[in-house]
Amino acid sequence: MAPLDRNTHGVFAIAPTPFDEEGAIDFDSLSRLVDFYADAGVTGLTLLGQMGEAPKLSHEESVRIVQHVIKRTDLPIIVGVSAPGYAAMRALTVDVMSAGAGGVMIAPPNTLRTDDQIVSYYEGAAGAIGADVPFVIQDYPLSFSVVMSPAVIARIANAAPGCVMLKHEDWPGLEKISALRQLEADGAMPRLSILCGNGGLFLDFETERGADGAMTGYCVPELLVDVVRHTAAGDRDAAHDVFDAHLPLLRYEQQPGIGLAVRKYVMKRRGILASDTQRKPGAALSARACTEVDYLLARLARKDSRVVVTV
Amino acid sequence: MAPLDRNTHGVFAIAPTPFDEEGAIDFDSLSRLVDFYADAGVTGLTLLGQMGEAPKLSHEESVRIVQHVIKRTDLPIIVGVSAPGYAAMRALTVDVMSAGAGGVMIAPPNTLRTDDQIVSYYEGAAGAIGADVPFVIQDYPLSFSVVMSPAVIARIANAAPGCVMLKHEDWPGLEKISALRQLEADGAMPRLSILCGNGGLFLDFETERGADGAMTGYCVPELLVDVVRHTAAGDRDAAHDVFDAHLPLLRYEQQPGIGLAVRKYVMKRRGILASDTQRKPGAALSARACTEVDYLLARLARKDSRVVVTV
Amino acid sequence: MAPLDRNTHGVFAIAPTPFDEEGAIDFDSLSRLVDFYADAGVTGLTLLGQMGEAPKLSHEESVRIVQHVIKRTDLPIIVGVSAPGYAAMRALTVDVMSAGAGGVMIAPPNTLRTDDQIVSYYEGAAGAIGADVPFVIQDYPLSFSVVMSPAVIARIANAAPGCVMLKHEDWPGLEKISALRQLEADGAMPRLSILCGNGGLFLDFETERGADGAMTGYCVPELLVDVVRHTAAGDRDAAHDVFDAHLPLLRYEQQPGIGLAVRKYVMKRRGILASDTQRKPGAALSARACTEVDYLLARLARKDSRVVVTV
Amino acid sequence: MAPLDRNTHGVFAIAPTPFDEEGAIDFDSLSRLVDFYADAGVTGLTLLGQMGEAPKLSHEESVRIVQHVIKRTDLPIIVGVSAPGYAAMRALTVDVMSAGAGGVMIAPPNTLRTDDQIVSYYEGAAGAIGADVPFVIQDYPLSFSVVMSPAVIARIANAAPGCVMLKHEDWPGLEKISALRQLEADGAMPRLSILCGNGGLFLDFETERGADGAMTGYCVPELLVDVVRHTAAGDRDAAHDVFDAHLPLLRYEQQPGIGLAVRKYVMKRRGILASDTQRKPGAALSARACTEVDYLLARLARKDSRVVVTV
Repeated sequence: MAPLDRNTHGVFAIAPTPFDEEGAIDFDSLSRLVDFYADAGVTGLTLLGQMGEAPKLSHEESVRIVQHVIKRTDLPIIVGVSAPGYAAMRALTVDVMSAGAGGVMIAPPNTLRTDDQIVSYYEGAAGAIGADVPFVIQDYPLSFSVVMSPAVIARIANAAPGCVMLKHEDWPGLEKISALRQLEADGAMPRLSILCGNGGLFLDFETERGADGAMTGYCVPELLVDVVRHTAAGDRDAAHDVFDAHLPLLRYEQQPGIGLAVRKYVMKRRGILASDTQRKPGAALSARACTEVDYLLARLARKDSRVVVTV
Repeated sequence: MAPLDRNTHGVFAIAPTPFDEEGAIDFDSLSRLVDFYADAGVTGLTLLGQMGEAPKLSHEESVRIVQHVIKRTDLPIIVGVSAPGYAAMRALTVDVMSAGAGGVMIAPPNTLRTDDQIVSYYEGAAGAIGADVPFVIQDYPLSFSVVMSPAVIARIANAAPGCVMLKHEDWPGLEKISALRQLEADGAMPRLSILCGNGGLFLDFETERGADGAMTGYCVPELLVDVVRHTAAGDRDAAHDVFDAHLPLLRYEQQPGIGLAVRKYVMKRRGILASDTQRKPGAALSARACTEVDYLLARLARKDSRVVVTV
Repeated sequence: MAPLDRNTHGVFAIAPTPFDEEGAIDFDSLSRLVDFYADAGVTGLTLLGQMGEAPKLSHEESVRIVQHVIKRTDLPIIVGVSAPGYAAMRALTVDVMSAGAGGVMIAPPNTLRTDDQIVSYYEGAAGAIGADVPFVIQDYPLSFSVVMSPAVIARIANAAPGCVMLKHEDWPGLEKISALRQLEADGAMPRLSILCGNGGLFLDFETERGADGAMTGYCVPELLVDVVRHTAAGDRDAAHDVFDAHLPLLRYEQQPGIGLAVRKYVMKRRGILASDTQRKPGAALSARACTEVDYLLARLARKDSRVVVTV
Repeated sequence: MAPLDRNTHGVFAIAPTPFDEEGAIDFDSLSRLVDFYADAGVTGLTLLGQMGEAPKLSHEESVRIVQHVIKRTDLPIIVGVSAPGYAAMRALTVDVMSAGAGGVMIAPPNTLRTDDQIVSYYEGAAGAIGADVPFVIQDYPLSFSVVMSPAVIARIANAAPGCVMLKHEDWPGLEKISALRQLEADGAMPRLSILCGNGGLFLDFETERGADGAMTGYCVPELLVDVVRHTAAGDRDAAHDVFDAHLPLLRYEQQPGIGLAVRKYVMKRRGILASDTQRKPGAALSARACTEVDYLLARLARKDSRVVVTV
């Protein structure tokens, strides 16, 4: 399949990793999940991110998941390869790129603080994975405690030709998108594809600011596809209308610590995952929280007929 | 006026501190703000919180603000008295309580980590302000980096008779409300009034879980009043309907770092504040962000006729 | 060999992992290192800690290192098995215990904050590795940002029979040792072996406070053995005299971020390691820093004849 | 007195603030303290730093302390003016400069992360205090969680002519001194006076790397004066000899959280402070810790006859 490039746009769905109730990878659910995403109209998939419980998988499991997905779909695949050492990062990159991935995503270790430290880390990572591998900077300060200014992202993009995409997840982040697009317009940095995270909580405005789309795991990815499509077509009100309809659920899913539990629960309710199990240690929804999600789903279903849940 | 007690409920609006463009306190705007809140139907006001830019005010300014507000309204007043040392906390408490405040609010210093450290800090604070002063625990981990379990809150409530209220701002926080109400039901702690923050982002469910209301500064406090009222009346759908209408703007205001700028901008647009100036160092909205807020206000005005903005 | 127990005392040397200049594990140097530690009089070895660059090793490499060491020596071995998920922790534990390790060491993930979160994490970990595996709590707030009060350690020790040892590395920490020994004397918790880290920076007083010894990687482990021995023999002044002689170098090695580089450099100078390479990303000493370490070594050699460096 | 300049060198003692047992400022002890520092040969004094419990003092108390000290001595005075808002920073600066201070010291708020944020903060602060006021950057990541690269310090020094000194307290920090001196030699930044903190724990090498001296509060400032003098005279071994003699006590005092308690206790034992009270909330030494300090003092007194303690 085509590798990532600087103009990639659309929606890359962050896929959760399905487990059965004993914590083993559930490949049948994974197949259903891939089919579901393709039907929802996403542009590509991102595997083995934080929300894919990547740190809880062994190298072998990680590779098997990527191989399984690539066998199932022609959608381009980005694979999270973050690791404490460059050796493991390189090893996983080699294996997933040879399996057919389109690129890899790299998060910063939470010990980085200064601009120089961050740039140096990504230069080292780019050297480790190889200059021909397209990679994505994962910029998620709330989770990683690493804050990258637009200037830092420009420095990385200038230093590493393989850097073609930003997973934008800063908070607040709208001005950052504008600043990056301005730096590009000024010739201060090469163009990056910018796909936005944060569960989609600001996607309505992020696309208006110049983002190319979304890379996040909201449990109704159809919404993400809609917003990107309407904004691209210049239909601002339509984008906001559908976004606003989903916002109550999307906001509920965006709670740190339990977001993945909500996501897996809804995907189970939608008939995609056989179980909403997370590998331990992991969060679980209380019975009360499940009823709250059910209530939000029922309200949403009245506005968006695609949201049908199994009994 | 009546002091705070364990059964206080409703909406305490977190008031911003109005400044003119040179950074001086704008008492005329403060008067309009107080009148506005009273008209909006709030139960009380909270002054000198983080969103009131309290750390940028001198002791004398703080006391003058409290005196001005108390002279203007009969609404009960909570005053933030957080300080690095107990001496300053006590001095401000004495002055504002003698001016007629109903209670004080205390945030934890960001160096606290263990349960024992947190409990010990609040025991010391309670001793410093005096046993007869009702106080509020401000539980806001995202801002203060201090995480209080339900067990810790129970320990503080048991140790300090003056502790009558929790400003609940943990994230995620719904289970915490349920856990606290269960501890009360089990006799493990005295009842606390629980008012919720986080800009109101989860108020629709927080009130269902047993919270007594809101203590936050959303720029349209009428919404907070509505949600609390509908839930208290058992009208769940009505609460969610009005909440959902406001959620797009409320979500935009809830961005860390620029939330206060949004709030002051809207209050200026609503004709309440003469200026949206913050004391330095502070954030400001870009022109682009202002147009985004205007767009959200215009959309909201179509659903809630109370939201009228001045030209 | 005998497993760890609650009365284990002496010095467990934290072993660095030797790499050649390409970053491959250097098993010849590892053999020399093991022999060196045995000659220095240590009681046991700790493998795959943070200072062993454990996060940069694959599962297979980790197991091979443990097997190699156990084949080389009869000293009891503790193996760091910290991992983001319990599954990987369990897998490594099973492999190293079957290879003959005496116990495992578990560090807390840096997301834990409250007492309940910490206790719950260790309960889960204890369940994952199995009740019959002796384990060590690694209490190192400066590195992990997790602060465990004495009460938390008591709760873990009471809940998990496998918990037999504390790697004490809090800072400041002397009162913590006294508090734990008092809790034991009061019957509030079972006895734990307490071995101290922090590079040995407070070992002179830690042993006086009731610690059973050291678990750290100071590049001259002979000093750690001396201090523990003199204190056990009641010869306070002798313990402090030898400690003070080493303190200038020990202090230099204790700098965060470059401590391991100093350690490996000295071990190379002492003829133990063929190379002081760290796996990337890692720190390296500047030429100037090397001359500073050389100067400290030369000064130390005048007081401690065991410190001889190769040319 | 002469203001601070870029070539200031020697020892600026960080003065603790003496309180009586009720927490009131003890001006008699403050007078003795000033005389003691002058007799010890320090070059200047730093008042109202973190170790001076500045955040626990009111504006009026702060000004009175500065006035008292300036009346008592001709030593140049640096005053900590860090504050959450620029208005309070400016107000204190105006008052202490008009009282005769030689310059002010500014610590970064712990919310700063990126290079741009840090530079912008100091530019704003420099504007607030006025271009003619010499100021010191306080670079103390362990306490403030703000990491400044050499490039950031160069940017501040280039942007703000009033920036004449760095209180260097990074950890590890030796390479940073070398990097800054190299930037100066390369013409990339103006010269800064560099005085080192961290309790003096690395002063023996810091002065060799190009630092101009110390700014710290070790309870035996005579040692700091000695090290700076010996190094300036080119007598390396003499500097290290006296440093090493003090290192056991200095290291004990350097423990975070209780360092100030040790410092005040020793100054009480030396007959300077009437009480070692800290304003609440504050740490206190246990009886056991006092005996440990006494033991270290007794050992030190055998090597340095200036260390005499009162009974």
